[in-house]
Amino acid sequence: MRAWENNVRKVVPYVPGEQPKDRKVIKLNTNENPYPPSPAVTEALRRMTAEPLRKYPDPTAGRLTEAIAAEHGLRPEQVFPGVGSDDVLAMAFLTFFNSGKPILFPDITYSFYDVWAELFAIPYERQPLNGRFEIVKEDYRKENGGVVFPNPNAPTGVELPLADVEEIIRSNRDVIVIVDEAYIDFGGTSAVGLLEKYDNLLVVRTFSKSRSMAGMRIGYALGNEDVIRCLNNVKFSFNSYTMNEAAICLGVAAAEDHAYFEETRRKIIATRERAKQELAKLGFSFADSKANFLFVTHRTCPARELFAALRAEGIYVRYFDKPRIDNYLRITIGTDAEMEALYDFLRRYLR
Amino acid sequence: MRAWENNVRKVVPYVPGEQPKDRKVIKLNTNENPYPPSPAVTEALRRMTAEPLRKYPDPTAGRLTEAIAAEHGLRPEQVFPGVGSDDVLAMAFLTFFNSGKPILFPDITYSFYDVWAELFAIPYERQPLNGRFEIVKEDYRKENGGVVFPNPNAPTGVELPLADVEEIIRSNRDVIVIVDEAYIDFGGTSAVGLLEKYDNLLVVRTFSKSRSMAGMRIGYALGNEDVIRCLNNVKFSFNSYTMNEAAICLGVAAAEDHAYFEETRRKIIATRERAKQELAKLGFSFADSKANFLFVTHRTCPARELFAALRAEGIYVRYFDKPRIDNYLRITIGTDAEMEALYDFLRRYLR
Repeated sequence: MRAWENNVRKVVPYVPGEQPKDRKVIKLNTNENPYPPSPAVTEALRRMTAEPLRKYPDPTAGRLTEAIAAEHGLRPEQVFPGVGSDDVLAMAFLTFFNSGKPILFPDITYSFYDVWAELFAIPYERQPLNGRFEIVKEDYRKENGGVVFPNPNAPTGVELPLADVEEIIRSNRDVIVIVDEAYIDFGGTSAVGLLEKYDNLLVVRTFSKSRSMAGMRIGYALGNEDVIRCLNNVKFSFNSYTMNEAAICLGVAAAEDHAYFEETRRKIIATRERAKQELAKLGFSFADSKANFLFVTHRTCPARELFAALRAEGIYVRYFDKPRIDNYLRITIGTDAEMEALYDFLRRYLR
Repeated sequence: MRAWENNVRKVVPYVPGEQPKDRKVIKLNTNENPYPPSPAVTEALRRMTAEPLRKYPDPTAGRLTEAIAAEHGLRPEQVFPGVGSDDVLAMAFLTFFNSGKPILFPDITYSFYDVWAELFAIPYERQPLNGRFEIVKEDYRKENGGVVFPNPNAPTGVELPLADVEEIIRSNRDVIVIVDEAYIDFGGTSAVGLLEKYDNLLVVRTFSKSRSMAGMRIGYALGNEDVIRCLNNVKFSFNSYTMNEAAICLGVAAAEDHAYFEETRRKIIATRERAKQELAKLGFSFADSKANFLFVTHRTCPARELFAALRAEGIYVRYFDKPRIDNYLRITIGTDAEMEALYDFLRRYLR
């Protein structure tokens, strides 16, 4: 071991879902949208020219924040853009969770919350979901340094009713409550309407799922203007330019095509509802997902075995080898054809 | 003041160089390249399609690291890509500067080094440049937790000779030495050749200056494979996907067009050398810049006054109101026509 290695930060690297290069694979493992981005994105790509790229991009990504604000009926000063919602969430942790008191989030949830907390030396306490994988709102009434949870939750897909979300926000007026709505567009009820009433609410969204733009890394936070100003101050203190010109251009085009967005998310919701019926017939059980994935367990076949069998068939789903969820698979909702291929295989395999 | 505001991180926001919307402005204030990106970037933009954007990008940005490695005669495992060199540098601070001992950098240098050190609670000590704005290599022999400096330095443009760079690396084998070569392509001698000899060296580069790609946010670090592995481990522990698909595609095109790169940087070097003659005639003095900017002070006219006069004329340069450099202007090298407009105005104004 060389001397400089003594001072290297110790970490456990994240293992992202596989991105197989084989085109024939059915990819139901990373919660991507099975439909392409809006045709308006193709148009915007065609209109882009290389010349402006020589200059730094607008550090505020003004055109993009305006388009996002318009979509939500908010002011641009209420929008904070970032390089995917991971970037936005990490920045929010860094900005708001400095009390020294533990922040609270569910025990089964997005796997980066504890990572960012450790990165920024923020103490945290996990609050267990109940047996139906639901967030127990009473668990978030104790003294804390902030609250964060996805709604619908990941990887369970379970939605916390808006009244319960509001109760958590209302009983935590002295800290920031982050509602991570990465999957809200697939049938959940957003907390965005609560922004008028609560200045301690931050809603985080992404273009990666419902906008079919995972490849462009665009996320954003919505909040009170003062909350967003705090985020911008911290962000600009150490990295001025993060959103590149292409993300701004193509993001605007995606944000503005409301009709395509509606059409795509409806198709995915319809496919998911059919998937619930098919998978139930095949002996699976699952909580009632409002996301673009189902979190399923089978009556007899262990999840780990099924994961391997599906993979051998070229159908990629996600398996988490973690306490409480190690007999579950997370299956992203694909196209109808992809889902039919999944059911066909399962019918044969589980017979 | 609301309760949640007590826990907001306290920061001093960075103020980036102005990006005026008026097209007629002569922009010599942010060290951008006055020439457009390579025609290969236009080609790559034309070939891009929207469909693949629905998927997450390759988290390793493999095509880009391969193209960069080929350009430098290195292996892809020696390249760490990031969202501009700011992202790469911040990640290197976080990864390597954990000894608790102060890291060392010049007193007059890139303004983000102390910001990242404070962000990550890394102690630091500034080492004063000498009267000719040169780094004094002996200052970097004391015990420390790491070393970082730009070469050529910013905003002075002064190059540290490679033998002195090597001496700093050699006398600090127990820590990582970061040589920030944002401006190296404009006539400096790179430390990349030293990577074979020293496993404690990290060279950081950017596409923002010599590749005319500031708008796409592409930076990278070059190092020993073990050093790069450490950077990747830390990066992947908390943010898997940062380089978007467009940055990867267009970055590859820019990296591969060696002829255009050579042509552009030679033009800028030629314009800079003429600028030295013209500005000397006008009563300016400056260190011998090897960057795409000159850091100048005038015999009689205060920098602050000149800054305001230039701005009123629509010529934007950079002024830093900081100790030791508050009578200097940093002037980016533009096209010949832009520089002629600058000389014309100065001839009239200083008469």
